[in-house]
Amino acid sequence: MTDNTLYTYWRSSAAYRVRIALHLKGIAHRNEYIHLVKDGGQQRLDRYRSINPQQLVPAWRDDNGVLTQSLAIVEYLDECYPEPPLLPRQSYDRARVRALALAVATDIHPINNLRVLKYLRHELGAQDEQINAWYRHWVEIGLDALEQSVGDRGYCFGNSVTLADLCLVPQLYNARRFEVSLDLYPRLLAIESNCLALDAFRLAAPAAQPDAQS
Amino acid sequence: MTDNTLYTYWRSSAAYRVRIALHLKGIAHRNEYIHLVKDGGQQRLDRYRSINPQQLVPAWRDDNGVLTQSLAIVEYLDECYPEPPLLPRQSYDRARVRALALAVATDIHPINNLRVLKYLRHELGAQDEQINAWYRHWVEIGLDALEQSVGDRGYCFGNSVTLADLCLVPQLYNARRFEVSLDLYPRLLAIESNCLALDAFRLAAPAAQPDAQS
Repeated sequence: MTDNTLYTYWRSSAAYRVRIALHLKGIAHRNEYIHLVKDGGQQRLDRYRSINPQQLVPAWRDDNGVLTQSLAIVEYLDECYPEPPLLPRQSYDRARVRALALAVATDIHPINNLRVLKYLRHELGAQDEQINAWYRHWVEIGLDALEQSVGDRGYCFGNSVTLADLCLVPQLYNARRFEVSLDLYPRLLAIESNCLALDAFRLAAPAAQPDAQS
Repeated sequence: MTDNTLYTYWRSSAAYRVRIALHLKGIAHRNEYIHLVKDGGQQRLDRYRSINPQQLVPAWRDDNGVLTQSLAIVEYLDECYPEPPLLPRQSYDRARVRALALAVATDIHPINNLRVLKYLRHELGAQDEQINAWYRHWVEIGLDALEQSVGDRGYCFGNSVTLADLCLVPQLYNARRFEVSLDLYPRLLAIESNCLALDAFRLAAPAAQPDAQS
């Protein structure tokens, strides 16, 4: 019997990527909610550290074992549940999609996630305004490059949803939380709008999660 | 005719990952050296921005076009030149390797790369000691988790080189530059030692590059 479990937090944009994939592919699973603020961060508790020593969400567990890292999880799900495919067939195209996804997942998101912003505040004494400027700086550099790199056929690459869209949409959600102006990114906004027209993206959104606002 | 070009900088640990893959697979190519410090950073010059709008190295160009993001490039090379394979055959194992690679590539490296350290210094007024503490903090959190996650059969995963080793070895090189003590990571050091016994890793090392020290 398959015991599929997603370890998730509603506001985690990395977990949000995996949630979209699960909904797109219709993969039955249960959720374990790991609150990143409560209890000093439930990701630090022993019961979660035994799942993911990195103390980050998301994690995925099935009959094969535990997996961490949202992009590794999504590629795994794409291999196990091939429909609809989240990567193109040709190697070069697949690399283009992975590069777009990684441009968000390596060069925007990690510099701006909660633990980094906390370090800026508590260890370096940064003020709110400096933290917001930091956030905006890295998001804007990243989105500027993405705006030049995405296609114009409806999604980040080509005319269907790929791994790259699963990274873009949560990053734009995150950018709005920090009041980054998105006016300079008409192509990214058009892609987001196409994605949010799909049930899978709406069902995966932070506000739609049972642990939202908790 | 194939015109394979790697855009590289000797000290870039992301470029170092791709160099290892190229040597392991024996892929003929030429190098274009993009000096990240000279000329205010040659990655900012128009001639490179047209290659990579993200203004980061590495980039790869072949008859298909340009590719960016080291992990996307390595996976592409692994698909085009399958021997020796850098990912296991089984989906679950492949996901484990990707997760180890991403633990370095998303959660250690981007927070500590040159552009971020520069921002800390110039925009937030951080002193040398604070910058080194920042570096050590993120490396140590990341390596602590990796030490618990790697296997004990010679390499990060199993008994042969994978994508994860291509990320680990450059990260350890980088950690030494910042004088991070590695004593707590005996498994990682044993893996590094096995890797550095291989020609491909030695030939790809920063000090072995023609642009080193330039």
